[in-house]
Amino acid sequence: MSGAAASPIPAGVRCADDWITHARARLDPDVYAWLAGGAARTFLDNRMAFDRRRLLPRMLADVAGGDTRVELFGDLLAHPFLLAPVGHQTLLHPEGELASARGAAAMGAGMVAATLSGFRLEDIAACGVAPLWFQLYWQPRREDTLALVRRAEAVGCRALVLTVDLPIAPPQLSERIAGRLPRIPANLAGMAPSPSFTAMPGGPGPLQSPLLAAAPRWDDVAWLEAQTRLPLLLKGVLHPDDARRALALGLDGLIVSNHGARTVDRTVASLDALPAVAAAVAGRVPVLFDGGIHDGSEALIARALGADAVLIGRAAMYALAVAGAPGVAHVLHLLRTELEMAMALVGCGRWLEAGPGILFSD
Amino acid sequence: MSGAAASPIPAGVRCADDWITHARARLDPDVYAWLAGGAARTFLDNRMAFDRRRLLPRMLADVAGGDTRVELFGDLLAHPFLLAPVGHQTLLHPEGELASARGAAAMGAGMVAATLSGFRLEDIAACGVAPLWFQLYWQPRREDTLALVRRAEAVGCRALVLTVDLPIAPPQLSERIAGRLPRIPANLAGMAPSPSFTAMPGGPGPLQSPLLAAAPRWDDVAWLEAQTRLPLLLKGVLHPDDARRALALGLDGLIVSNHGARTVDRTVASLDALPAVAAAVAGRVPVLFDGGIHDGSEALIARALGADAVLIGRAAMYALAVAGAPGVAHVLHLLRTELEMAMALVGCGRWLEAGPGILFSD
Amino acid sequence: MSGAAASPIPAGVRCADDWITHARARLDPDVYAWLAGGAARTFLDNRMAFDRRRLLPRMLADVAGGDTRVELFGDLLAHPFLLAPVGHQTLLHPEGELASARGAAAMGAGMVAATLSGFRLEDIAACGVAPLWFQLYWQPRREDTLALVRRAEAVGCRALVLTVDLPIAPPQLSERIAGRLPRIPANLAGMAPSPSFTAMPGGPGPLQSPLLAAAPRWDDVAWLEAQTRLPLLLKGVLHPDDARRALALGLDGLIVSNHGARTVDRTVASLDALPAVAAAVAGRVPVLFDGGIHDGSEALIARALGADAVLIGRAAMYALAVAGAPGVAHVLHLLRTELEMAMALVGCGRWLEAGPGILFSD
Amino acid sequence: MSGAAASPIPAGVRCADDWITHARARLDPDVYAWLAGGAARTFLDNRMAFDRRRLLPRMLADVAGGDTRVELFGDLLAHPFLLAPVGHQTLLHPEGELASARGAAAMGAGMVAATLSGFRLEDIAACGVAPLWFQLYWQPRREDTLALVRRAEAVGCRALVLTVDLPIAPPQLSERIAGRLPRIPANLAGMAPSPSFTAMPGGPGPLQSPLLAAAPRWDDVAWLEAQTRLPLLLKGVLHPDDARRALALGLDGLIVSNHGARTVDRTVASLDALPAVAAAVAGRVPVLFDGGIHDGSEALIARALGADAVLIGRAAMYALAVAGAPGVAHVLHLLRTELEMAMALVGCGRWLEAGPGILFSD
Repeated sequence: MSGAAASPIPAGVRCADDWITHARARLDPDVYAWLAGGAARTFLDNRMAFDRRRLLPRMLADVAGGDTRVELFGDLLAHPFLLAPVGHQTLLHPEGELASARGAAAMGAGMVAATLSGFRLEDIAACGVAPLWFQLYWQPRREDTLALVRRAEAVGCRALVLTVDLPIAPPQLSERIAGRLPRIPANLAGMAPSPSFTAMPGGPGPLQSPLLAAAPRWDDVAWLEAQTRLPLLLKGVLHPDDARRALALGLDGLIVSNHGARTVDRTVASLDALPAVAAAVAGRVPVLFDGGIHDGSEALIARALGADAVLIGRAAMYALAVAGAPGVAHVLHLLRTELEMAMALVGCGRWLEAGPGILFSD
Repeated sequence: MSGAAASPIPAGVRCADDWITHARARLDPDVYAWLAGGAARTFLDNRMAFDRRRLLPRMLADVAGGDTRVELFGDLLAHPFLLAPVGHQTLLHPEGELASARGAAAMGAGMVAATLSGFRLEDIAACGVAPLWFQLYWQPRREDTLALVRRAEAVGCRALVLTVDLPIAPPQLSERIAGRLPRIPANLAGMAPSPSFTAMPGGPGPLQSPLLAAAPRWDDVAWLEAQTRLPLLLKGVLHPDDARRALALGLDGLIVSNHGARTVDRTVASLDALPAVAAAVAGRVPVLFDGGIHDGSEALIARALGADAVLIGRAAMYALAVAGAPGVAHVLHLLRTELEMAMALVGCGRWLEAGPGILFSD
Repeated sequence: MSGAAASPIPAGVRCADDWITHARARLDPDVYAWLAGGAARTFLDNRMAFDRRRLLPRMLADVAGGDTRVELFGDLLAHPFLLAPVGHQTLLHPEGELASARGAAAMGAGMVAATLSGFRLEDIAACGVAPLWFQLYWQPRREDTLALVRRAEAVGCRALVLTVDLPIAPPQLSERIAGRLPRIPANLAGMAPSPSFTAMPGGPGPLQSPLLAAAPRWDDVAWLEAQTRLPLLLKGVLHPDDARRALALGLDGLIVSNHGARTVDRTVASLDALPAVAAAVAGRVPVLFDGGIHDGSEALIARALGADAVLIGRAAMYALAVAGAPGVAHVLHLLRTELEMAMALVGCGRWLEAGPGILFSD
Repeated sequence: MSGAAASPIPAGVRCADDWITHARARLDPDVYAWLAGGAARTFLDNRMAFDRRRLLPRMLADVAGGDTRVELFGDLLAHPFLLAPVGHQTLLHPEGELASARGAAAMGAGMVAATLSGFRLEDIAACGVAPLWFQLYWQPRREDTLALVRRAEAVGCRALVLTVDLPIAPPQLSERIAGRLPRIPANLAGMAPSPSFTAMPGGPGPLQSPLLAAAPRWDDVAWLEAQTRLPLLLKGVLHPDDARRALALGLDGLIVSNHGARTVDRTVASLDALPAVAAAVAGRVPVLFDGGIHDGSEALIARALGADAVLIGRAAMYALAVAGAPGVAHVLHLLRTELEMAMALVGCGRWLEAGPGILFSD
């Protein structure tokens, strides 16, 4: 299977954004709105943050034979792209996360499987993607959280990603697909359901909601860290003080993310928050970046600002919606090719060698 | 009564701005223009000043059980929203200020009743809103000003707000509704009328107008301060030197406001002026903010820049125009919910604990 | 005569810009293009330079009874507006400069009559405008320049304004009206004609053109200064070093101007150049500002940045084109009223007392 | 031959950009897209970089009799414009590079002939353009590179320009014209073909491509420098460290260029990169600028930021496409005239005397 197979890739798709039109034409409008939507200012900011940066080319550098390899937790990745955890992928394509996993595997990319996947983690793991990581949503009962960890260990996941951004989110996007979801997510069968909450004029506000009471705190993370030998990453870190605290607690990696600009508007752009977090980490653990990447040169910009690897969310999902596994592979191939072009431009043959000096500054 | 009552809230109203379309459809064009209008650059600036700020989220913070309470002049408010003084509300809805007061009361919000209300202050006070404050326009005769103060004291107002911004304003907005107003405002029956003034080519300019001669000055404020035991606030403060002078005079609070961008164009945005005023006050008296807030996260931004509470003007008036008291309550409910979401995002469970650190800075 | 006379002022004209639509409807398209045109970036910059500034209001200030008077070269002006020198005004209205002079006189405004006026200076002077200044274009023969000076002295002009900006300008605007002009301008009858120049591929460029050879230099200015007792101002100063040199030479005043953005594109905005020029002059001679003012608050901004008075060009010409003298008076009345409103806002009752402190700065 | 000849120049063409509409109407859409296209952000940036600069005029300066002459490698040019190396000009006009050479010759402009010209270098040289430089693409075999150098020497080229920007470029533009090109470029008959490369999902990425393996490096430049007595310039320098290294190696000149924004998007604008490169060179060798100039005042801005001369690419090609040699001459005439106007404005009669002081800075 390959993105180069003629049929699944629509004619004229030359970059990741070209998939959007096709996805919009194919998806139900509510599903498309759920996938493509976000808080307007932050959504735009996630892209404009890249557009404010400029590459400063070098000439005559010896980059031939370079590559984009990066090692993460003992695994050597051919390139720094991993599929971001996106739930409910069966809304986009009948094969959902299985297709994503196969597309990633075809391109040697890693994948972070979501707690809210349309398929069970065990089924995703069977698709052969490597490395496979598991994104964990904290469950109301510790034994359920632990059960998820054990399953991730059992299927050979190479890392756990605990999502710790906004513990209670505006419903604007999730309600678009509410009626299309199974009553119980595939991975959570038999577990205690998460509390539901809708703010009512007479009732408690979000700060008093049971959702917030059930949200994890630093001591929960400390407990979780002690339960598993898998590397544990926190996803949603944007403040350098949180990064420092995570390091002090022994966390194994951080993912800078604003949840795809899907929470409160005017949240800082992921890329703008990256440098301070990376500076706080100072190379002691891997820092991954998640936030609007849709072309390979943006990955290089994220690298210049401190990212060790990057997650691909919507950009892969549009292709999944249209073309399944070959679509996902095709997008990853595009990103990688664009990344290598950009590396050649700035005279940098090795991914991890790219630093702030490749960016122009006045 | 509640904003959640199905009928009065139009379908699809999800945020304060959603009320605008409905209000525009229902109101007479001149009344809508009077309500929605303003000096173009400053009006835009009042909103853009928020859009230039970004929230910097924190993770894993212990915010469950937090709340938005704030104490002002001995009253404990459930949240920091008060209805701003807006005159002539009967142009918007037959129940006018009475409906606003009932909507505020339903949500536990305070209200600042305007001198130019469509109803008498006594009638507004009877609606049970708490705290009720009274906005005072300086009257040509001191005894009339004093009479207004005594009435405010008599009905149990908890504070007086003296509006001290532009003493003479461009007529562009007020003339839209001139023909619809009673000859004598309800609260001013029996008092000396304010002088009228229209600049004519052959005549005196605004600086020579009787309106300006009748405008209050610092010594008038000192006199007023001595007439009442009620807390006295000045509304319209934008310069830190004025804030310092007000403190030296013993004023009890300040409201940073540019009169809703309804005076001279290119007046500074309220939010841009807030930090310097708050720094000058340094916590000695409450600083309130008034200037374009239409979602709850903006209130949090104003708090981060020094506001102790915020006034809601147009955002509540659009809902009043469409749905009366339930509309006003609904908007306040939205704002409060959005505020709590934003507080959860930045890991801040208490309103007054939010400081500049919740904003991203390069 | 007054702008308040009902008939000459079109309904709905509330600010200077409102005249533009009416002028465009009435004027020949080539004449309108000549009047309204300019180098695109600088034209926009002249306006945006104001839009980047914000007024910082003061409250409770004692401004009643203030005024906008300013003394210039022994004349007390009721307000700081003078009509800028604009040539060929008979293209706009049959009474041309005579109507402008009458409109200015009605409002107590000064006027700078242009060398290239449609009427002779003597006829303009007969209209009773005061003070009347004369704008001088350097003539190929010194005796012709001197003859113009003598005529200005004879009719009671109170100052001379030598235009010293771009000595050779792009023809884009002037060629729009070339066919409509008299062979010899009214004021230049009997004088040596200025050389003409069109750059041709095979021929000399602008630097080698006879126009440039005939342009005045610093020693010409020194000569001119010695020929007359009238105050001599230079118009077109944008560089502080030129301002210093002019002072050293004994010049009596400077006009910061980029010729209405009518020369080379990307010339700096007049307002952006003003502060450095004013700083170099340091109050030793009057500094006037010319550059896009179309509302009274902009005059106040120019004052805050160092201008002692301001020239009104296009803003008055649109009204002239539509309504003759009453139109010109109406625009001046609007500007003055807006200026006084803005002065009241910033708590400044005297024109010359307005300094940089009335502008907001971060 | 002259741009002033009535027939070849379309009516209404007043500036270089006016040619674009005519060129678009005449050219095949693919050829137009190839010529006009570029990476969107950088393409816009190349223009916006000029639009962020402002000229600061001087008055009364003695610029009459000035000129725009500049000496480069022993040749005295009447003005600082050279035609940039653009390949495949026969796609634009049947006479291609021959017409460009004749147009440049008519205006006394220099020309850099491209390796990928539609005509052989010998034929271009026969058109009498002076100085003629040769743009060299590094060939897979050193002997072929050397053969090109020898031919350039033989026809009297006065300098060699080695293009060293992106060694491997995105195919978006080149594939628009792929089917229209001869199998072997005119100048490369008998030489080893360059390797071809298309990234395929299963295959090597750009960093592993044979194209990159064949790209020149610093030691190749050192070798080339030793093979010829002609001045050798590097084209594509954007980083000051590369400029320093080139000087250390004995290079004779540098051309700051981002290849017309035709490579990776978000490459820095040429003009933004110019000052640091010029500062690194510090006048030791000529620095030329290439990057979006389409009016003469932009050349002056580039001069103020450090350029000794400038290359004209697309601006001349649009005119070539429409009107052949007279079109090229016409554009050069426009640019020169505009340049001299701008020099007169800033009071600078000599090209090389224009420094940073002619630009406004806050």
